[in-house]
Amino acid sequence: MPELRRDPIIGRWVIISKERGKRPSDFIIEEERTKGGFCPLCPGNENTTPPEVLAYGRPVFAPNTPGWTLRVVPNKFPALVIEGDLDKRGEGIYDKMNGIGAHEVIIETPNHNETISDMPREQLIQIFRAYRDRILDLKKDSRFKYIIIFKNFGRAAGASLEHSHSQLIALPIVPHRIEEEIKGCLRYFDYKDRCVFCDIIRQERSQNIRIVAENREFVAVCPFAPRSPFEIWIMPKRHQSSYTDMDEDQLLGLTNLFSEVMRRLNKALPRVPYNYMLHSAPLRNGSLEHYHWHIEIMPKLTMVAGFEWGTGFYINPTPPEEAARFLREIDIRKEFKKT
Amino acid sequence: MPELRRDPIIGRWVIISKERGKRPSDFIIEEERTKGGFCPLCPGNENTTPPEVLAYGRPVFAPNTPGWTLRVVPNKFPALVIEGDLDKRGEGIYDKMNGIGAHEVIIETPNHNETISDMPREQLIQIFRAYRDRILDLKKDSRFKYIIIFKNFGRAAGASLEHSHSQLIALPIVPHRIEEEIKGCLRYFDYKDRCVFCDIIRQERSQNIRIVAENREFVAVCPFAPRSPFEIWIMPKRHQSSYTDMDEDQLLGLTNLFSEVMRRLNKALPRVPYNYMLHSAPLRNGSLEHYHWHIEIMPKLTMVAGFEWGTGFYINPTPPEEAARFLREIDIRKEFKKT
Repeated sequence: MPELRRDPIIGRWVIISKERGKRPSDFIIEEERTKGGFCPLCPGNENTTPPEVLAYGRPVFAPNTPGWTLRVVPNKFPALVIEGDLDKRGEGIYDKMNGIGAHEVIIETPNHNETISDMPREQLIQIFRAYRDRILDLKKDSRFKYIIIFKNFGRAAGASLEHSHSQLIALPIVPHRIEEEIKGCLRYFDYKDRCVFCDIIRQERSQNIRIVAENREFVAVCPFAPRSPFEIWIMPKRHQSSYTDMDEDQLLGLTNLFSEVMRRLNKALPRVPYNYMLHSAPLRNGSLEHYHWHIEIMPKLTMVAGFEWGTGFYINPTPPEEAARFLREIDIRKEFKKT
Repeated sequence: MPELRRDPIIGRWVIISKERGKRPSDFIIEEERTKGGFCPLCPGNENTTPPEVLAYGRPVFAPNTPGWTLRVVPNKFPALVIEGDLDKRGEGIYDKMNGIGAHEVIIETPNHNETISDMPREQLIQIFRAYRDRILDLKKDSRFKYIIIFKNFGRAAGASLEHSHSQLIALPIVPHRIEEEIKGCLRYFDYKDRCVFCDIIRQERSQNIRIVAENREFVAVCPFAPRSPFEIWIMPKRHQSSYTDMDEDQLLGLTNLFSEVMRRLNKALPRVPYNYMLHSAPLRNGSLEHYHWHIEIMPKLTMVAGFEWGTGFYINPTPPEEAARFLREIDIRKEFKKT
């Protein structure tokens, strides 16, 4: 069973996978992986993944067979396991608990070579629907306090499989990074009685120098203090603390804006590796006046090195105003016609 | 002039290098760098770096000429600049200031191919001396509140030059990551009236399952909740909040233990890329009962991907107990005889 351990100083949690128990030589092998023609996420290979927990586009009576347009399966090598109790305990001054959680893979398309930036919007909307459906289902399990959904695209951004997919991890604790974000929002709210994200959206729309794209429901900006060049945040214009609060209009609006943003990014930096993360309120907090869900897109263009590790500072060689202007001015009309 | 910008939510600072102003195409070129035979850090090429601020092993009347055994120079492409005022100001709800600071390169050896793990201890002690000398000198500048010293070894860990070097950045603010650490230490101290690092050292020495090496003055452990496989912390056994509090005995003790640890690491994972960071108390805080300086060594074996970015959690496939045992049991006697 994996173990969750808490750093006694900062309070940061790590997941220790005892099972994998990697020795030095194992790391050398890892770098050689990812070659070869077989893809466990492609249609026809459904039996090589754990049984699916969700599938769209195919009759329900034929699970784990081809014909699906999107499929969600448990991760074959999960960071956390679903069965068991947390069993919180100490080891002297240290704190730990069992690595209980869910780790799922959202297989975003049956087409091995299709990427987010060239996906038709009918396909993309299914991804956002799947995120919602999985969160709503996993939320029923009272052991889970937080669900993070993220995507690693490209080897340099941590993807070990080429086939377009994102991941979901349900956690028994609210992660440090989220708590920090919520505390910051609360501090702002205490002082101003306004949501900081709503204020960011207001200021960005009025300054209009860091906006990448917007539509009726959503806005995409290069944030004022971005960690990486071409970092982009997508935020609902309406105040909303949880992803699952979205209605159908918003889901469509998100799909349209996300599609546009990813096309712009891919045109500016062809096949750039990236990560995106969905930040939504913790599962047990209800609706929050001070928190605002959003998606953070981080292209992988710079290194996290000693300075960043040591200080939490980031050095960014591209001002967000220039990144936003560049992305905004790119001509993506041709790409749109293709779909 | 670079700009320091503060994230309005978390309070994280980033350095925006307007001068570099990288456009998308610049990132593609960057990946091609680092080839070619010319090394600006090698003896004979002193005129290709900014004038040195410190040199050992050579008469002072011949600055910027060969003959040195260690040399410190300002970074030619600094993240922060030394001239100017902070000029703290707002931009609507956002906060920023000028990117004032010092950014120096510690050229650790005149020998291009020598690395920390095969360096004689007479060379290594000079590095730790240089760190101390530079901190003491820069501390006189009242604009600086914190100095971080770090090393990036290997391309994958962010090193852009092969020649063995570390870096120093003096900052006009105490970084978020350090504040977080100090707050955690203070929380522990408030509750227990003891330094958390002193307690960690006490528990590690009594459990004796995560210790990599120790001598009279220092101890090296794989921390209980490590972010990366084979992460190692080196801590002075004596309570001390600042690196510059070290006496000569300790300096020797640190050199010996550091040398042993790096040889063990390099034997376990030959030429593994790594970062190390020196964490010491902020410059203006005086001596702190609750904080304890230390060095964090992070081998680069796993990826920072969407999950880590999104949550601040880390997934570590190697339990620190196994990493420590592996490092402890490695036979490095042969390597020691060579020096």
